[in-house]
Amino acid sequence: MSKVFLTRRERFNAAHRMFHEGWTDDENMQVYGKCSNPNWHGHNYNLFVTVKGSVKPDIGYVVNLKTISKIINENVIDKLDHKNINIEVDFMKDVIPSAENLAIAIWEQLEPHIIALGVELHCVKIEETENNYVEYFGINDEI
Amino acid sequence: MSKVFLTRRERFNAAHRMFHEGWTDDENMQVYGKCSNPNWHGHNYNLFVTVKGSVKPDIGYVVNLKTISKIINENVIDKLDHKNINIEVDFMKDVIPSAENLAIAIWEQLEPHIIALGVELHCVKIEETENNYVEYFGINDEI
Amino acid sequence: MSKVFLTRRERFNAAHRMFHEGWTDDENMQVYGKCSNPNWHGHNYNLFVTVKGSVKPDIGYVVNLKTISKIINENVIDKLDHKNINIEVDFMKDVIPSAENLAIAIWEQLEPHIIALGVELHCVKIEETENNYVEYFGINDEI
Amino acid sequence: MSKVFLTRRERFNAAHRMFHEGWTDDENMQVYGKCSNPNWHGHNYNLFVTVKGSVKPDIGYVVNLKTISKIINENVIDKLDHKNINIEVDFMKDVIPSAENLAIAIWEQLEPHIIALGVELHCVKIEETENNYVEYFGINDEI
Amino acid sequence: MSKVFLTRRERFNAAHRMFHEGWTDDENMQVYGKCSNPNWHGHNYNLFVTVKGSVKPDIGYVVNLKTISKIINENVIDKLDHKNINIEVDFMKDVIPSAENLAIAIWEQLEPHIIALGVELHCVKIEETENNYVEYFGINDEI
Amino acid sequence: MSKVFLTRRERFNAAHRMFHEGWTDDENMQVYGKCSNPNWHGHNYNLFVTVKGSVKPDIGYVVNLKTISKIINENVIDKLDHKNINIEVDFMKDVIPSAENLAIAIWEQLEPHIIALGVELHCVKIEETENNYVEYFGINDEI
Repeated sequence: MSKVFLTRRERFNAAHRMFHEGWTDDENMQVYGKCSNPNWHGHNYNLFVTVKGSVKPDIGYVVNLKTISKIINENVIDKLDHKNINIEVDFMKDVIPSAENLAIAIWEQLEPHIIALGVELHCVKIEETENNYVEYFGINDEI
Repeated sequence: MSKVFLTRRERFNAAHRMFHEGWTDDENMQVYGKCSNPNWHGHNYNLFVTVKGSVKPDIGYVVNLKTISKIINENVIDKLDHKNINIEVDFMKDVIPSAENLAIAIWEQLEPHIIALGVELHCVKIEETENNYVEYFGINDEI
Repeated sequence: MSKVFLTRRERFNAAHRMFHEGWTDDENMQVYGKCSNPNWHGHNYNLFVTVKGSVKPDIGYVVNLKTISKIINENVIDKLDHKNINIEVDFMKDVIPSAENLAIAIWEQLEPHIIALGVELHCVKIEETENNYVEYFGINDEI
Repeated sequence: MSKVFLTRRERFNAAHRMFHEGWTDDENMQVYGKCSNPNWHGHNYNLFVTVKGSVKPDIGYVVNLKTISKIINENVIDKLDHKNINIEVDFMKDVIPSAENLAIAIWEQLEPHIIALGVELHCVKIEETENNYVEYFGINDEI
Repeated sequence: MSKVFLTRRERFNAAHRMFHEGWTDDENMQVYGKCSNPNWHGHNYNLFVTVKGSVKPDIGYVVNLKTISKIINENVIDKLDHKNINIEVDFMKDVIPSAENLAIAIWEQLEPHIIALGVELHCVKIEETENNYVEYFGINDEI
Repeated sequence: MSKVFLTRRERFNAAHRMFHEGWTDDENMQVYGKCSNPNWHGHNYNLFVTVKGSVKPDIGYVVNLKTISKIINENVIDKLDHKNINIEVDFMKDVIPSAENLAIAIWEQLEPHIIALGVELHCVKIEETENNYVEYFGINDEI
């Protein structure tokens, strides 16, 4: 039986600042422009989590979306929503809070919980604005 | 010459109920929650059909979208729109009407007609709410 | 001090059937077409509730959105979500379940609770599909 | 000749914190919940500015949208985008940074510039999330 | 019985050029910028038509949306869709093809047909891009 | 280190006509229908450009989006926006202006500039209407 991909969207609103620890504010401004404003700025983030698996014939689902939603909320949204990504989010410690690094860190938070359901984590997508998004598919030799 | 992927969106509004025949209403409620309401509920479904092929140099299209749209409407939309998926849709007989099973069944309805156009069916995507969607890519050893 | 209008969106998925009690199924079909399918169909409804009031200087809000959201959920969404509007919704008893009648009935459900907050109910908007919506502003001699 | 309403959308990303100066952090948390997080959070704001006027017969516009866009950017967006609304925005000094107060303050920033174009400012709308927005129509006895 | 407002969206794709007959191409360019490109450009237009009326108790509708849709398509969409607004649309002859003038001209096309249904035409809204729209409410002393 | 996919959306409004040089207007109409209107029509196009690369540890980006945006604007948007695709766009000369051919031609415009940044061009997606889009992934034996 072939695989179906199932995607759940969750949302969080957070503050951040693009900032490289070893650089001065001026150096950060030169690289990141207004995204490095020392007083922070923020976004409405859309998070899309895609899992992959066979449809279980008895229930007709790859996996129950309520379970996926609960995992995402407990492990990711509750830690990010209405937070400052630079200073309050344990899994973003020591990482520049770009959408790229968010996607990778969220993948790492979610993967063990998704695997425990008997399905694979396929993609973590972060939409930062209506014009920008990133996608991460895990460590994958084929990509 | 390399391939282009062409996607057409069509929409349908339908009623359904998540329901496993062999279980009581209570058992269904335990698994599916309010999605198993015996009096039905419904959705505005978005269906995205993606085909893959080379661009035909004389017409500049992979395939005429009007042809794709007609195939989707005649074989899928006309059977689903303003219907009850559990009891009125021939190709969903004996299947739990999840988005996953809808995607697989729609794939099977469409594939022979798409292949007859000289292009491949690549993906059937069903968006059930703004927060949930599934994608099916056919029986595929690489996935 | 002048007024600010505050709008909250909530969503529900429901089944319905356009159906006039005194008419046969054929007569209903003639007036409503496929919207009268005896086996039901359904929609993802968007509900927008707009209240009007002065900004309270101490808190900076017209009213706390969490309060508005709770009122809408307890009085409207919990009764409509994943339900059959024709047969399960107390405040839609004996009413044809059009978007128009939904908007009027939801207004009546919400108004006393909104007034109790010291603000006015201004508009109830129901979006049934991406192409159709209705707005109701209450009984209003100026409209 | 009757009036046409012309609306321009502009966007800004900003950080803020719901916070009443005279209250402790705990008191603020009790009223505002997570929106009062001392480390800030943020949003992608959509700003819709509606002006009202007669169509000028020679150019076919109520007013050139490029002019409107320039006014909004110079007087509002440049001051808000990638900023902290609580501490960096001159026209939000001493005001609780709710969407309501943002709309009123933006109205005051824009109105003289809009009137100078020979048209009226009709509405300032602030969309804070996909579920919440406010509208302000100025000081208006009829509202 | 109070009034309900009912809105139908229809879409058309058209070419146009902002162009004042009595001016040279250079003068047009100075006023309209790239919108005056002599070789045309185009848009996906969204048209929202709002009618106002009482809910008819026997059918539960202000008016059947299929009737509204048919009127809009026959009188407006069929004349605009995949057309050049400057040179092919009878009701835009001798008018600068701005969104403002489109809204007014569409109002004039629709109003007699809407009134014939026993309801009022309330608003014609034209969305030209995701950032710009105009609204026209007819000749109205109160506006 | 594994790869992240980064997508930037840019927009352009343009006129075009589906037209095969060697055919009469009638023959073109027979194949393309109203899309071949000799007086042109147009669209609001959404262009999504996806690049693939490793996250640079010092800046936290695959590549700075401002750089991507500048490349897309200088090489693609400035040549297409408010233009006639059939007669004004150098890289669409002698090509039927379908979404498919646009995607391929835009890929060719962008690829050398993207590669020069040390990342790969992964996908060019063109959305012509809310119901239609195409995706091109370059010349790729695996597709």
